[in-house]
Amino acid sequence: MHITILGGGGFLGRKLAARLSETGTLAGETISSLTLFDMAPPPAPEKAPFPVRCLTGDVADPQALGEAIPPETRVVFQLAAVVSAAAEADFDLGVRVNLQGSLALIEVARRCGVPPRIVFTSSVASFSGDQSTVMADDARQMPLNSYGAEKAAAELMLQDASRRGMLDAVNIRLPTVIVRPGRPNKAASSFVSAILREPLLGLETSLPVDEAFALWVSSPRVVVGWLLKAAEMDTSALGTDRGINPPGLTVTVGEMLAALSPAERALVKSEPDPVVAGIVGGWPARFAATRALALGFQPQVGLAEILQAFREDDLAQTRAERGH
Amino acid sequence: MHITILGGGGFLGRKLAARLSETGTLAGETISSLTLFDMAPPPAPEKAPFPVRCLTGDVADPQALGEAIPPETRVVFQLAAVVSAAAEADFDLGVRVNLQGSLALIEVARRCGVPPRIVFTSSVASFSGDQSTVMADDARQMPLNSYGAEKAAAELMLQDASRRGMLDAVNIRLPTVIVRPGRPNKAASSFVSAILREPLLGLETSLPVDEAFALWVSSPRVVVGWLLKAAEMDTSALGTDRGINPPGLTVTVGEMLAALSPAERALVKSEPDPVVAGIVGGWPARFAATRALALGFQPQVGLAEILQAFREDDLAQTRAERGH
Repeated sequence: MHITILGGGGFLGRKLAARLSETGTLAGETISSLTLFDMAPPPAPEKAPFPVRCLTGDVADPQALGEAIPPETRVVFQLAAVVSAAAEADFDLGVRVNLQGSLALIEVARRCGVPPRIVFTSSVASFSGDQSTVMADDARQMPLNSYGAEKAAAELMLQDASRRGMLDAVNIRLPTVIVRPGRPNKAASSFVSAILREPLLGLETSLPVDEAFALWVSSPRVVVGWLLKAAEMDTSALGTDRGINPPGLTVTVGEMLAALSPAERALVKSEPDPVVAGIVGGWPARFAATRALALGFQPQVGLAEILQAFREDDLAQTRAERGH
Repeated sequence: MHITILGGGGFLGRKLAARLSETGTLAGETISSLTLFDMAPPPAPEKAPFPVRCLTGDVADPQALGEAIPPETRVVFQLAAVVSAAAEADFDLGVRVNLQGSLALIEVARRCGVPPRIVFTSSVASFSGDQSTVMADDARQMPLNSYGAEKAAAELMLQDASRRGMLDAVNIRLPTVIVRPGRPNKAASSFVSAILREPLLGLETSLPVDEAFALWVSSPRVVVGWLLKAAEMDTSALGTDRGINPPGLTVTVGEMLAALSPAERALVKSEPDPVVAGIVGGWPARFAATRALALGFQPQVGLAEILQAFREDDLAQTRAERGH
C-alpha cells in the first residue's frame, strides 16, 4: 500500500515515517511506497524497506496535494498545520492551511481508486473547558482560538466526506505533545515542552502560567502509536462520529517541575504571560476518553514514561543540534 | 445605516426587504440604503423610503461580495444558501456557497469601518436527533447531511471571527420554514410546505413520510421577526457562543393535514420516499430554545398562526403566479 504523510518533515511526521520504515507494514499489509510532503524538504527515514518520495508544497494547493497523494494512496496522515499561536497571529494563514488545506484534501482524496483512510490530527484546542471539567466523548467543540475553530470546522467536513464515502477519516484530537525536541515553536503550548527540555539541556526557560495549572498531555511515542491505531482500525465502529479523544494524561505544571532535579528546576523562571495563559487556559485538562479506550487506543500511563521517551528518543539529538 | 441582504431575491429575503422598507429603521437608526444581492436580479421592495441597489453575483466570490457589502455596511443578513437536497446532490456546489461563501463574507466584513452585525442563517439540519429528543441550547452539532455540515462549519468560523472582533455574528438555526410560497424546491423539506400549499391551491401533492412524523417549524412572518431581533440585539449577552436555537414549534404531519378541509386533505397522496425520509428523519423535532426565549425571541405560537400568515401574506400571489 502507498502511504502519504502531510507535514512529513515535522517532528511527529519524522517519527511516524521512522516507525513505518521499521515495521514495513501497516494493517497487516506491506507498505509499497511512502510520500513525505511538507513546506521544506522533509528528510527520508534511514534504511526504509520501500521507496520514499520527499515533496515540497502547500497543503492548500490541490495540484501540489494531488502530486503528494497519487490515486493508489490508501492512507494519508494529515499532520500539517499552522499551530495555535501562529494561527492566532495570522488569521488568513491559519484558515488557508488548517481549513482550506482540509477541503483540498477532500478534493484530492475523491480521485483515489479506493476511499483512503485519512488520519486527521485535530486538537484539544478545539474544545474549551475549565481546569476541572472532565470532557465526555461527545462534548461539544466550542473553541476559544482560531486554530481550534479551523480544526473543528475541518473535522465536520472530513466527517461529512466520510459519510458520503469519499474518504474514510478518523479525526484524532491530540493532547499537548511533550517533550517536543528541537527549539521552542509558535504553539501557545510551547512552554509545556520547554520547561522540561530546556533544563535537561542546561538552559534557562520561562514559565508563563502558575504551577497549579493542569494540562492534557501525551508523549510523541504514544501519539505515533495512536496515529497507527487510527490508520489500522475498523472505522465501521465509529458510525457518523469520526472524532476520537485519545487517552492522554492530566498533569500539573508543578508535577512536571517535580520530575526535574533541583538544579534543573532552578532553570525554570516564573514569567506570567497573559496572552499564552489566555490561550492555553481555555483548553480542557481532563477527558474521559472512554470510547478510545474501548476501541483499543493505548493510554498515556505517566509522566515518567514521557520523560523516558524523550531521554531515549530525542535528548541526544536535540543536544547535538543545539550545541548543548 | 447601510444594510445588505445576501440572498435578497429569495422568499425570506424579499419579505425581510419589504419589512425594512415598511419600518425604515433598524435598532432605532434610520436605514440610509439597502443592497439586495442574489444570483438572479432581486426585486426591489415597493415604495422603499431609502435607495435600494439590486446586484447579482456569487456569494463565494470575494470581489462580487465586496461590491455588495460596502465599507459603511452595518448589518448583513446572510440568507443565500444551497439548500439541503441540492447540497446533498452536488457536494462541490454546497461547499462553495455554504462554506466558502461564509469565508468570503469574513474576508469582506473585515474591510468595513465598524465590525458589521452578521445575521447568519444556519439550520436545524446542522443537528441530528431522534423524533423525541429535546435538544438543549448547547447541544453538539452532529449533522447527517452536507448542508448541515457546511452550515455548522461556517458557524464555527463566524463565531471565531466574532471573538476576534472582525465582525459581530449571530448564527440563527432556522426550523423548517412553512408555508413557503411559490413552487416546490430542492430542499428535502419542500414537502412540508407543499402538503399545505398545494391543497390550498387545489393541487395534488405527495407525502414522502408518515403522518406521525414530527418537525420543528416556523412561519416566514415569525422568522423575519427573529432575523430583525438577531440584527438588533446586544450580542454581549452571547459571549463566545454565537449560536441561537430560536423558539419554533413542534408539529406532526398529521396535525398539519388535520388543519386542511376534507376536500383539501384528499389531495395529499402518501408516496413514501426513502431518500427524503432519510434526510429529514435525522433532523430533531424539538428544541428547548431557553436561551432564545430569555433573549426575547418571540415564540412560534401555533399552526393556526402559520396558516393565517400564509393566507394573508402569500396565498393570493402564489395563486396568481401559478395560475390556480
